[in-house]
This record gives sequence, C-alpha cells and structure tokens, in this order.
Amino acid sequence: MERTVKAFDNDLDALKSAAAAMGGLVEAQVADSVRAVVRRDTDLAARTREIDERIDDMEIEIQDLAQRILALRSPVASDLRAILGALHIARDLERMGDHAKNIAKRVSALSAVAELQGLNGIVRMARLARALIKDVLDSYVDGDTEAALRAWRRDEEIDEMHTSLFRELLTYMMEDPRSISYCTHLLFVAKNIERIGDHATNIAEIVHFIEEGSRFAESRPTSDDASVTVVDATDREQGT
Amino acid sequence: MERTVKAFDNDLDALKSAAAAMGGLVEAQVADSVRAVVRRDTDLAARTREIDERIDDMEIEIQDLAQRILALRSPVASDLRAILGALHIARDLERMGDHAKNIAKRVSALSAVAELQGLNGIVRMARLARALIKDVLDSYVDGDTEAALRAWRRDEEIDEMHTSLFRELLTYMMEDPRSISYCTHLLFVAKNIERIGDHATNIAEIVHFIEEGSRFAESRPTSDDASVTVVDATDREQGT
Repeated sequence: MERTVKAFDNDLDALKSAAAAMGGLVEAQVADSVRAVVRRDTDLAARTREIDERIDDMEIEIQDLAQRILALRSPVASDLRAILGALHIARDLERMGDHAKNIAKRVSALSAVAELQGLNGIVRMARLARALIKDVLDSYVDGDTEAALRAWRRDEEIDEMHTSLFRELLTYMMEDPRSISYCTHLLFVAKNIERIGDHATNIAEIVHFIEEGSRFAESRPTSDDASVTVVDATDREQGT
Repeated sequence: MERTVKAFDNDLDALKSAAAAMGGLVEAQVADSVRAVVRRDTDLAARTREIDERIDDMEIEIQDLAQRILALRSPVASDLRAILGALHIARDLERMGDHAKNIAKRVSALSAVAELQGLNGIVRMARLARALIKDVLDSYVDGDTEAALRAWRRDEEIDEMHTSLFRELLTYMMEDPRSISYCTHLLFVAKNIERIGDHATNIAEIVHFIEEGSRFAESRPTSDDASVTVVDATDREQGT
C-alpha cells in the first residue's frame, strides 16, 4: 500500500513537472517570437516555429500521462483536480505556443519594411506578458493561490497597453498608406500577445481551482477596449 | 451491479447531451454575432454577449459533471476517453463562444459607418464556419469519425477565404483612409471566424480520439496565408 501511494505521488509529480517544463518552453517561445519580429530575424522565426512542434508533442505526452494515471489510480478530490488541472494548463500552454508561432509567422511579411513604427509598444506588451507567464507558472509550481490571483489581476495592464497600441497603429495607417500593410500585421502581433496574457490568466484560475476546489470569486477585469476603439481618419487629417 | 452500469451509462449520456447542447448554443451564437455585424444591430449584439455567460456556465457544469463521474465511477478505456473528450470539447466550445462575443463587441465600433465594404466575404466565411460547427457536432453525437475527418478537411476553405478577404480589406484601406478604422475591425471579425473554424477542427480531432483512441494520421492542412500576406500601397496606387 505504502508503495502504491508513493508511486502515485511520483506520477503526480511527473505530471506537474511536465506541465511546468512545457510552460518554460512556451515562455521562451513567446520571448523569441517577439524578438524575431523586432529584429525581423527570419532564421529565429523559423526556429520558433519548430519549437512549436515540440510544444504540441509535450501536450500530447501530458494528455497520455494524465489518462494513464486516471485509469490506473482512480484518483479523487484534490488528486483528481491536480490531474484535470494539469490537462487544462497544458491546453492553455499549447494555445499560447500557437499564438507565439503566429507572431513568428508574420516576420516574413515585415522583413521588407525598412523602419517599423509601433515596435516599442509591442516590446512593452511582450515584456509584461512574459512576466505574467513566469508568475503564473511559479504560482502553479508553488501551489500559491495568492500569487496566482496577483498575476491574474495584472493582465489588466496588458489589456490597457493593447488598447493604446491599437489606437497608435491605426493613427500610423491613416498618416501613411504605405504603413497599412505592416501595421495590420503588428495589430495582429499585439492581439496575439494580448491573447497570450488571457491564457496566462486562465492558468491562474486553474491554479486556484487545483488548490481550493473552487473558482475565483471576483470576475475578470476587462480593460481591453481595442475592439470598440474607433479612430476617425477625417479628425486625424484636420488634427495634424 | 447491473444498476451501477446503467447509472454509469446515464451519466455518460448526460455528459454527452450537455456538450451537444452547449454546441448548439455556440452554433446559434456564432450566427447571431455575425448577423449583428451585418445589420449593425447593437441590441442583437448585446443579447449575443449575454448568451456568452450562459455558455461559460455550461462549461463549468460540464466540468463539474465530468469530475463527479471520474471520482465516482473510476472509468477506464473508452469511457475515460468519452469523459476527457467531453471536457476538451466544452473547452473548445467556450473559446468559440468567446470569439463570437468578440465579433459582437465590434458592432458598436461599426455602427456609425454608413456603408461597409467586405461584408459579403464575412457572411460567406461565417456560413461555412457554421456548417462546419454543425457537422462536427453531428459527428460527435453520432460517434462518426469519417464525418469528423471530412469536416476537419473542410476548414481549409475557411482559411482560403480568410486570406482572400484579408487582401480585399487591405486594399479598401489603401484606397480610402476613412475605411481604415472599420476595415481593421472587420479584419478581426474575419480572424475570429477563422479561429472558430480552427476550434471546430479541434473538436473533429477529439471525436476521432474518443472513438479510436488515437489522433488523425494526416497533418492539418494550413491554407491560412493571411499572416504572410503583404499588399503594397505603392503598387495599388499605380495599378488603379
């Protein structure tokens, strides 16, 4: 019996380690994809997209491991939540990897442009997103729901940056039609980072669910107003 | 014993019914959100966003039900896959609902525009996406992996439409700076529909996993070239 309990603990540890390792890879992947955009580095972009396959494989490994533990050990209560939580975290991480891959894909469309406006905003958003990923992963490993809640609240900053960058990019597009094509791609890069932040907050919610068996009491702050933002081209022309 | 088996079957049926019902709501939600955009109907948009809360609640109900079945019945093999599959499908459906909500959110930014170009493309994409959702949900209910595979392959059409609409909208933006603001929102509406199609293909993959215990052998077709598309403003001016 003692032996079975120990094997079960080992299984749970292995599952958590796998999810945390996957998270580390996604964190690096996000940083690299944005770096590839900033430097318009097509080689780095290509490598980032390769890493995405590794991330996809890791999700499948975690799914298989979780399924094996469920079938062999019939866990209940907090053990069951730990397994379901790891499954959900892996799913969110895989989506974050997809967003990073999509960021990297745009490098080819940006590589011909001599000078990009709006990159500072992208870099700032990415820095925050990366810190958020790191914090939620730490909160997962430590089982620290307070830290998870703090990270979850900070997504608001990313949303605010996104709205402001959205306006900024629209303004560039109105000022110079030659910037329309690349600014559109940067709009989607910004959106991808914003979504990565959303997935990080999902993970924070899952950490809370794993540890407490319940969901966050407060509802999610939504400061992403980019989808309701209008910049008027006529005003712009008169204004400048 | 007989009685326990029957109760277990009832549990699995209830779970599947709940996931299918959630799917039906998402299907209607997607149709309504696009209709709200086309008609610039802010009331319909508001209702669509309310329904999103119901969709979120349904996911939680499915999670709770799945967790209860796992804890009480300790299922293995195909029963275990059916439960994990329902969980994953509910997750994808919730994301599709989010995308529909994001589409509806943009109605307010579009409502001041007298005439929108590019709506035909949006309507065509949405029609295909809706058919895809219906087909994957049917394949789930029927446990029909062949139908799931056929639906999965058809996502390619949505991707191709997305790429072509992306080019079209960029062209409008270059021709008339006053269209930049609304075309940007339509770009994101198109992107949301494309992502809804992606989630539908995820569900097709899950159906295959539930029924066969394995993943699709062929790799996913990727015809979404919008992220590498460049439209040159200078060419446009010379060309027209």
